[in-house]
Amino acid sequence: MTDIQRLSTSDADFATRLAGLLAWESVADERVQQVVAEIIRAVRARGDAALIDYTVRLDRWTPATPSDLELPRVRLKQAWSAIPAEQRAALEAAAERVRAYAEHQRLESWSYRDPDGTLLGQQVTPLDRVGLYVPGGKAAYPSSVLMNAIPAKVAGVSELIMVVPTPDGELNELVLAAAHVAGVDCAFAIGGAQAVAALAYGTETVPAVDKIVGPGNIYVAAAKRAVFGQVGIDMVAGPSEILVICDGDTPPDWIAMDLFSQAEHDEDAQSILVSWDAGFLDRVATSIDTLLPTLERAPIIEAALRARGALILVRDLDEAIAVANQIAPEHLELSVADPESIVGRIRHAGAIFMGRYTAEALGDYCAGPNHVLPTARTARFSSPLGVYDFQKRSSLIMASFAGAARLAQTTALLARGEGLTAHARSAEYRGGFGA
Amino acid sequence: MTDIQRLSTSDADFATRLAGLLAWESVADERVQQVVAEIIRAVRARGDAALIDYTVRLDRWTPATPSDLELPRVRLKQAWSAIPAEQRAALEAAAERVRAYAEHQRLESWSYRDPDGTLLGQQVTPLDRVGLYVPGGKAAYPSSVLMNAIPAKVAGVSELIMVVPTPDGELNELVLAAAHVAGVDCAFAIGGAQAVAALAYGTETVPAVDKIVGPGNIYVAAAKRAVFGQVGIDMVAGPSEILVICDGDTPPDWIAMDLFSQAEHDEDAQSILVSWDAGFLDRVATSIDTLLPTLERAPIIEAALRARGALILVRDLDEAIAVANQIAPEHLELSVADPESIVGRIRHAGAIFMGRYTAEALGDYCAGPNHVLPTARTARFSSPLGVYDFQKRSSLIMASFAGAARLAQTTALLARGEGLTAHARSAEYRGGFGA
Repeated sequence: MTDIQRLSTSDADFATRLAGLLAWESVADERVQQVVAEIIRAVRARGDAALIDYTVRLDRWTPATPSDLELPRVRLKQAWSAIPAEQRAALEAAAERVRAYAEHQRLESWSYRDPDGTLLGQQVTPLDRVGLYVPGGKAAYPSSVLMNAIPAKVAGVSELIMVVPTPDGELNELVLAAAHVAGVDCAFAIGGAQAVAALAYGTETVPAVDKIVGPGNIYVAAAKRAVFGQVGIDMVAGPSEILVICDGDTPPDWIAMDLFSQAEHDEDAQSILVSWDAGFLDRVATSIDTLLPTLERAPIIEAALRARGALILVRDLDEAIAVANQIAPEHLELSVADPESIVGRIRHAGAIFMGRYTAEALGDYCAGPNHVLPTARTARFSSPLGVYDFQKRSSLIMASFAGAARLAQTTALLARGEGLTAHARSAEYRGGFGA
Repeated sequence: MTDIQRLSTSDADFATRLAGLLAWESVADERVQQVVAEIIRAVRARGDAALIDYTVRLDRWTPATPSDLELPRVRLKQAWSAIPAEQRAALEAAAERVRAYAEHQRLESWSYRDPDGTLLGQQVTPLDRVGLYVPGGKAAYPSSVLMNAIPAKVAGVSELIMVVPTPDGELNELVLAAAHVAGVDCAFAIGGAQAVAALAYGTETVPAVDKIVGPGNIYVAAAKRAVFGQVGIDMVAGPSEILVICDGDTPPDWIAMDLFSQAEHDEDAQSILVSWDAGFLDRVATSIDTLLPTLERAPIIEAALRARGALILVRDLDEAIAVANQIAPEHLELSVADPESIVGRIRHAGAIFMGRYTAEALGDYCAGPNHVLPTARTARFSSPLGVYDFQKRSSLIMASFAGAARLAQTTALLARGEGLTAHARSAEYRGGFGA
């Protein structure tokens, strides 16, 4: 029997057990922060020379010159041509759907005028230059390249620069191919905190960017946190999570496999099923036992389910929704008959998969919406990665003569209330109130 | 003669001098971070008791019970009724314009369907609960309360909780009045890192929020950085800055006063004027000398202009725009004849003030756009505070039977390419490809 916790909202200690299940603190320890600070200092001080040193030491290959760190665009194209045709077709199909969805997110500039002719508005512009971190080795996911790169290009980012470590000099051809189809402009074979530092501050070879996105290990995450302010960063992600709400009428094998699909990421991943049908929870538990031995990554899945998985019995749909809003999951499946009637009551979730046919996995690859999503309850205040993360807004104000006069009075009064006389006088000049 | 640097783009060392002028690192030192970490630990462990201890020690007044820390809504209303009528009118006028502009920023949910019936969309929801930090004492700006609170309420945030320290037990009635007119739901007389910790983790008296916004001193900024992840935060602001581009035809006194209006904030504030008219730069320098002695905050202004101010001579408008995009200023004045013809070439700026009548100060109080803006070149990747900072998005996916079958093929191929078999099988079930 697979060990997966069983909870019920009618248990006296439900709130405590749920809190324990969700607890996750991702703060890097002091040692990691010190190592990262040292790497950043070195890259700022010595540029390419430091990059080469760290690459020799940490990635175990020796670039002869700094230009060996570059993966020019033609190299990406070469990878694209060399992969099997059916993988090219799948990457292309996924890229097209991700792009089509992203197009809906693009913000446009707007403005309006007051009756006195004063113009107010918001000018939307893309970021100039963005850095995309892609992990090397086994955790290198081509789908992740698509998800991070495409919204940036749809936003209009003119230079998208990828960094990807090549441990022992080994490149992942699928990752390079995905970079090609996603429109990455150039790439560097560097990784770790040193790659983040290079992107944030620039070196002789690597241009400084305005924002860094993409997943990475604990050193990469700590480095992104450390350079935040110098450049923008995306969120720092925790382990992946899924919450499935099921009315009991979806085949239990399907739901078990959905729980597995999160759990197979790593031992910290979280899979939770909520239902008001106790018999269904039993049937899913049975499916878990039956199907688990057939999975390639069974040991990881089993560890994740034991440590952080749960089957939760609730009284009814209302309670299921309350639990979902409490958990604020990264992925939420509404595996029920009429998901459209309840989706409006979901206040916090990264992505919502509606109906029995919408396996969460579709969203990981090709449904269209981004798979970079807020984890660890951060859906309470943050959103999926999107085009809007690669756009910014500038406020526009153009006062007419009449508008300036009118606004000057309010401005002067409030400014003097705050003791800021120069503010008041600057406004009064335009209002025709003299000095 | 006021000491203000003169630079010219034709100087051989222009790039270096400009970089030196802009240099600003706001990272809190290790001692501050340790103090803040200790305060956060104490508030998490001891809740209200810790809040009271720190209030006694740091704000020098003694709450008899935790409920003494509360400033109920009726107390805010009382402040509103007690301030002079003309200040009430000015706050009301400003609030109304800020609200009207914010209404234009509200994001709406959307969705579309593929030809096969698959639904894709984005559901937009407000944050549940937001904390607003307001500094106490002299730096307490009622305008800042309006600018932080109103977008949150326009977004639909149901609970907006203000914290404001009361050094020596002294409350700022204008701040409380602004909180009333802005729709703040409740307030607490606490400040510093302990207030940030209370908002992030909750105490017996202070409810935990989902995001914390608002300006504060170095301890508040460090505390916000430390709790980021547990809750969302707004940006960590640096000193205020203005860049004025002038064609030489705006009265030099007006421009001098605009430079003063930034410089009077504090000694680190930055005021820069760019023009291709050398004679105009001289005339503004003369205005600075003449007007400076007439200002209440002359010593602060003089210190700021000396340390971080500059008059920059450029060859032409194109160069002026290039300098502006390089600086990415918080506030940009285009004090020229036809600002609309050039505003589209400004790639990075927090807010753009167009034309001779648009004093930057109008934007600080009542023009409508937010005065919380990206500083220290962060306009390269970030935006003014807005309604969108209090909304979040959830992706929506609802696959039709036909859509699930089609998407399952692409999903399965890409998932197997990444070694994630459970992902592939979860999709294949729905695609009718069996287990």
